[in-house]
Amino acid sequence: MVKILLNGCSGKMGTVISKIAETDFDNLEIVGGIDRNDNSFSYPVFHSPEEVNIEYDVLLDFSRADALRGLLTLTEKTNKPLVICSTGFTQDDLKLIDEKSKTLPLFKSANMSLGINLINSLLKKVSPLLYGNYDIEIVEKHHNQKVDAPSGTAILLADTIKNSLSEETQYVHGRDGQKKREKNEIGIHAIRGGGIVGDHDVIFAGIGEVITLSHNAISRDVFAIGALKACEYMGNISKPGLYDMNDVIGL
Amino acid sequence: MVKILLNGCSGKMGTVISKIAETDFDNLEIVGGIDRNDNSFSYPVFHSPEEVNIEYDVLLDFSRADALRGLLTLTEKTNKPLVICSTGFTQDDLKLIDEKSKTLPLFKSANMSLGINLINSLLKKVSPLLYGNYDIEIVEKHHNQKVDAPSGTAILLADTIKNSLSEETQYVHGRDGQKKREKNEIGIHAIRGGGIVGDHDVIFAGIGEVITLSHNAISRDVFAIGALKACEYMGNISKPGLYDMNDVIGL
Amino acid sequence: MVKILLNGCSGKMGTVISKIAETDFDNLEIVGGIDRNDNSFSYPVFHSPEEVNIEYDVLLDFSRADALRGLLTLTEKTNKPLVICSTGFTQDDLKLIDEKSKTLPLFKSANMSLGINLINSLLKKVSPLLYGNYDIEIVEKHHNQKVDAPSGTAILLADTIKNSLSEETQYVHGRDGQKKREKNEIGIHAIRGGGIVGDHDVIFAGIGEVITLSHNAISRDVFAIGALKACEYMGNISKPGLYDMNDVIGL
Amino acid sequence: MVKILLNGCSGKMGTVISKIAETDFDNLEIVGGIDRNDNSFSYPVFHSPEEVNIEYDVLLDFSRADALRGLLTLTEKTNKPLVICSTGFTQDDLKLIDEKSKTLPLFKSANMSLGINLINSLLKKVSPLLYGNYDIEIVEKHHNQKVDAPSGTAILLADTIKNSLSEETQYVHGRDGQKKREKNEIGIHAIRGGGIVGDHDVIFAGIGEVITLSHNAISRDVFAIGALKACEYMGNISKPGLYDMNDVIGL
Repeated sequence: MVKILLNGCSGKMGTVISKIAETDFDNLEIVGGIDRNDNSFSYPVFHSPEEVNIEYDVLLDFSRADALRGLLTLTEKTNKPLVICSTGFTQDDLKLIDEKSKTLPLFKSANMSLGINLINSLLKKVSPLLYGNYDIEIVEKHHNQKVDAPSGTAILLADTIKNSLSEETQYVHGRDGQKKREKNEIGIHAIRGGGIVGDHDVIFAGIGEVITLSHNAISRDVFAIGALKACEYMGNISKPGLYDMNDVIGL
Repeated sequence: MVKILLNGCSGKMGTVISKIAETDFDNLEIVGGIDRNDNSFSYPVFHSPEEVNIEYDVLLDFSRADALRGLLTLTEKTNKPLVICSTGFTQDDLKLIDEKSKTLPLFKSANMSLGINLINSLLKKVSPLLYGNYDIEIVEKHHNQKVDAPSGTAILLADTIKNSLSEETQYVHGRDGQKKREKNEIGIHAIRGGGIVGDHDVIFAGIGEVITLSHNAISRDVFAIGALKACEYMGNISKPGLYDMNDVIGL
Repeated sequence: MVKILLNGCSGKMGTVISKIAETDFDNLEIVGGIDRNDNSFSYPVFHSPEEVNIEYDVLLDFSRADALRGLLTLTEKTNKPLVICSTGFTQDDLKLIDEKSKTLPLFKSANMSLGINLINSLLKKVSPLLYGNYDIEIVEKHHNQKVDAPSGTAILLADTIKNSLSEETQYVHGRDGQKKREKNEIGIHAIRGGGIVGDHDVIFAGIGEVITLSHNAISRDVFAIGALKACEYMGNISKPGLYDMNDVIGL
Repeated sequence: MVKILLNGCSGKMGTVISKIAETDFDNLEIVGGIDRNDNSFSYPVFHSPEEVNIEYDVLLDFSRADALRGLLTLTEKTNKPLVICSTGFTQDDLKLIDEKSKTLPLFKSANMSLGINLINSLLKKVSPLLYGNYDIEIVEKHHNQKVDAPSGTAILLADTIKNSLSEETQYVHGRDGQKKREKNEIGIHAIRGGGIVGDHDVIFAGIGEVITLSHNAISRDVFAIGALKACEYMGNISKPGLYDMNDVIGL
């Protein structure tokens, strides 16, 4: 059983994490929270990191960037892993995290979805094997309020594919006209419509078969699962370092 | 039981049609064929339309454009429906078909796939109902040897949607950059890869739900089924006219 | 512009409806609300139907069953259409609705999703056309907390198909063993997993092509859209009667 | 450049392999064939393994089981890898292959599809990582003439998942009734219809996201690609052993 201390426990994500930890993880337990608010919880809540007087295995942070320094101080005291899921860090913050990871076990990941990180890991292995005989195309779908196309995740996946190949590839963002597909193209197609939360298909199309790795986001719960998976993993880590979701996946 | 006389019975499509008529249509029977070749068949084969001396309900042609005049002469003699599935007709041929349809029951369709014609029919009804609250996007997938993008079928479907709407719409062939979707866009996305036979998805994406009409081609057998469905329908037709797959579908 | 009076405006669905009416419907306007709560709104709110002293075109109810009688009284006074989206009515309530629909324009639908109702309508037309040459299978996916299988919606769709056909069909709920598919089977497959909101695919599989009608639920917003589509439609109705989503779809 | 000697070059698969080797593999070349028939080829054809008098890197066999002994004799002479893609071997044949693999580099795989073998490999890594927080369901689709359900491939994939997990799992072949999903279920759903060549989806459904590994067979060309991929791999192998598609994939 990994004992989690949850910073930001009364926030939106904190509430979701508390619930999912209870219903979906037999091996995790929230043993305490840190939050300014005094909501009723099934565990003790401290108003600041300094007040914490219980034992825990992992400190999970899903709050705000400005909580960082206080959490690092607590981590230096306990020497227990810190899983950082807040966002919006400054360059100074990121440098500090990097520096502190030399002496503390810290976790921080650009994307907290286990599924996206997993597919990204698989692509590193699958792409070089199939490229040449299988054409690679990415199709992503998002809601009609999204401003950027293609999605950051689609670019992440495409870059992973590109970097795994020895041959130079080119991205193609849609097709219109008379022109056969070049072998080294990676098609990236951005569908926009309604309230679609976020879908990504990576297609490997061969002469006689098509292999597809798909990810469909349902809700923001995806980040709660990712954070708890990270806690599960970090619960066994004592060695200093800057860990991320790729370590959790371990492929 | 509709009795079919099959012109081009020993050709590739003729062979497929004979087989599918037997295995998949209880209410159809090939009672004779017309072909220069003397392959063995379960039905009598005549070397030319002039030699035909049996009764039939529908004359089905899946051969070559230059067979047209002989078949029309036979049709004028019997006054039975003629289903034309050959391709490659000249302007003169097409004018002749049009003219003869004033006195004879003729069938000719630009696309012989029942499924594509069906989806096209549904779009006429569905698009005006959903447009405005549902964003419309088309995704088509074809093999990597296809020269044109988007596919002719995707354009057919998009044009049907466009023409069914009172508001002016614009086609968008891929997205790349910082720009939100406009309400009157119809996205058309051409995926190319491997040996994909041909897929078309028409997506209506709303705030809380997505409705998709999909067509996946498996093989050229799709045209045999369409031709036999046309025979089934034309078996009950005696009124002169130029019929097509929309009449078969009847929506 | 259809002017809507919204009963239950401060509830969860009421809030969603207010927002979507503003962002997604140019031709609808919420001109007033009825609710016991005094939240701040951009429109006047009355504490009960009796207090309403403004003009409106459609009265939309997304509250509780026990509001029915008060709303019917108001409707008798104004003679304006009433769109009933509350649930949990008793047999007496339903009888009352039925009776009042002889003199008032009332709307009530078993399923408020426009998409499901639309696909259900299409199936009535498509199934008889394709059955015999195309095998029909339904695949539905829902979250792992759902108790019943198959889903009520899957049964609704299957029954619609069954009732549209002259031949007797049988439902098959999964396959295991050595046995070829019978022509008159309708396969119904219930996938359960994670937090899937609700997907339904109706598959028509032919020899050379597969046609699929798909519905993917994203969120409860789907019911808000359905309710507003019903208001849009009822805004033009003055004739008494009991209307439902099939009238809105009009196929 | 790997030089291939192709046994069974004038057969159906031999013809496909010759064509695909030329159009899709820059690093492979068919330098000779073995076949009783005297069709015209771009390479020399020998009537039996004994007559072969050219150099080659890999001997590829896509013919009949009874060719085995002759091919093994040739392989013992040249000491070059033999890729066996014929089927229908007796127990004696299989024992012989096993025995000869102690001194010769032999390749033989139960399933020649690169895609299915790849997904099967990925499942070994992905399943233990996701199981517990993600529900696993398999959906397979095949034509209506298939007698067995679920497909052999679906069982292969399910067994791979089952064997990769420490917890005991149970297969569920369809759902009908009032019963929530158990955590240790693996749903296996067999859709049957029309001429579907063969689709397999392995679904990992979590609370906030769904990850799917999909395989769609287009045609028998899939086995030609697999065979040539095996040749590509075996071209670099001189060490005796019995290799299979997992070695080619190398995950």
